[in-house]
Amino acid sequence: MTGYAIVLASGELERITAASIIGSVAAAMDIPVAVFVTMDGLRAFERETVENRDFDGGAIAQAMVTAEDVQVPLFTEQLAQAKEIGPLELYACTMVMDLLGTTLDDYVDVFDGELGVAGFLERAEGKEVIFV
Amino acid sequence: MTGYAIVLASGELERITAASIIGSVAAAMDIPVAVFVTMDGLRAFERETVENRDFDGGAIAQAMVTAEDVQVPLFTEQLAQAKEIGPLELYACTMVMDLLGTTLDDYVDVFDGELGVAGFLERAEGKEVIFV
Amino acid sequence: MTGYAIVLASGELERITAASIIGSVAAAMDIPVAVFVTMDGLRAFERETVENRDFDGGAIAQAMVTAEDVQVPLFTEQLAQAKEIGPLELYACTMVMDLLGTTLDDYVDVFDGELGVAGFLERAEGKEVIFV
Repeated sequence: MTGYAIVLASGELERITAASIIGSVAAAMDIPVAVFVTMDGLRAFERETVENRDFDGGAIAQAMVTAEDVQVPLFTEQLAQAKEIGPLELYACTMVMDLLGTTLDDYVDVFDGELGVAGFLERAEGKEVIFV
Repeated sequence: MTGYAIVLASGELERITAASIIGSVAAAMDIPVAVFVTMDGLRAFERETVENRDFDGGAIAQAMVTAEDVQVPLFTEQLAQAKEIGPLELYACTMVMDLLGTTLDDYVDVFDGELGVAGFLERAEGKEVIFV
Repeated sequence: MTGYAIVLASGELERITAASIIGSVAAAMDIPVAVFVTMDGLRAFERETVENRDFDGGAIAQAMVTAEDVQVPLFTEQLAQAKEIGPLELYACTMVMDLLGTTLDDYVDVFDGELGVAGFLERAEGKEVIFV
């Protein structure tokens, strides 16, 4: 195992946050992480969604957003920080962007680029795949 | 790693499609793929569900179904094609079929057979497990 | 691969049961399993939730609860049995417990302790990670 390849396909804040924490902690431990954001996961990274905190999710997501004592930064900040600390890369799914008619400019500024599934599987080779 | 072992437990069209694309692309790259369809995932393969396109899912699933430019074939067609091209096998979960009182005849004709969890874990040995 | 590291982040009975069966079957095959329960998954292990069978889930979850012929024990019983038979360990997520203001006493008595994400990733090293 030479790292984690995370496929982030869920739009639920709880799952996105779990993926973001796992990726960030791994990167801080100097473990290479490649995150491929696709399907409903990609919608959560849209600028408008993030600005309005318009995420899907339930009670724990609410607790995260309103918590004062426990600081859980939003996944976008967490991933941006992780990229400065360790070997973490983020890619947006080309197919879903084509479907939605979006470009990287429509998403918060954390992506290293866009990839197709074949391109991601190549980067995932030898890595532990985590489908969220 | 000698392939992917995909546990398809979700009934959401976005997640099923993501799993189907990953499996198909891997098979096309000559990577062995074993897909184990269980829980809500199995319901999505029922003949009636597929005929009526009666899938769970949100905005991206809708975009997929209505898209004219971007051709995303339905997961059942995609998996059928993948089986002709590369080493992809599909198994239905015996336990859930027992629970629902169904047989393989109730599902679209893409399965290589049915398996219990122990049987699937044996096939998953040495493979990268992806739980969808 | 020296075992499975299961991240149980979903609160849906179907997914929890699938994870519990995979973990139990693996442990019975003498494969080491570490389960990390977090996010909505942790809520499903609250004493009150379990006593009232107040789980999220759909038709298959219902069938499981009401089935008379097919015996699918509740995931809590299944995991408790698995721990007696094979090398399966369960950990509750410290961060989510802090967020919810809960302690291990609030959960059914199947946990071996609590862990942070870094601690879990250390235990996951060399294991096949399954994110549910």
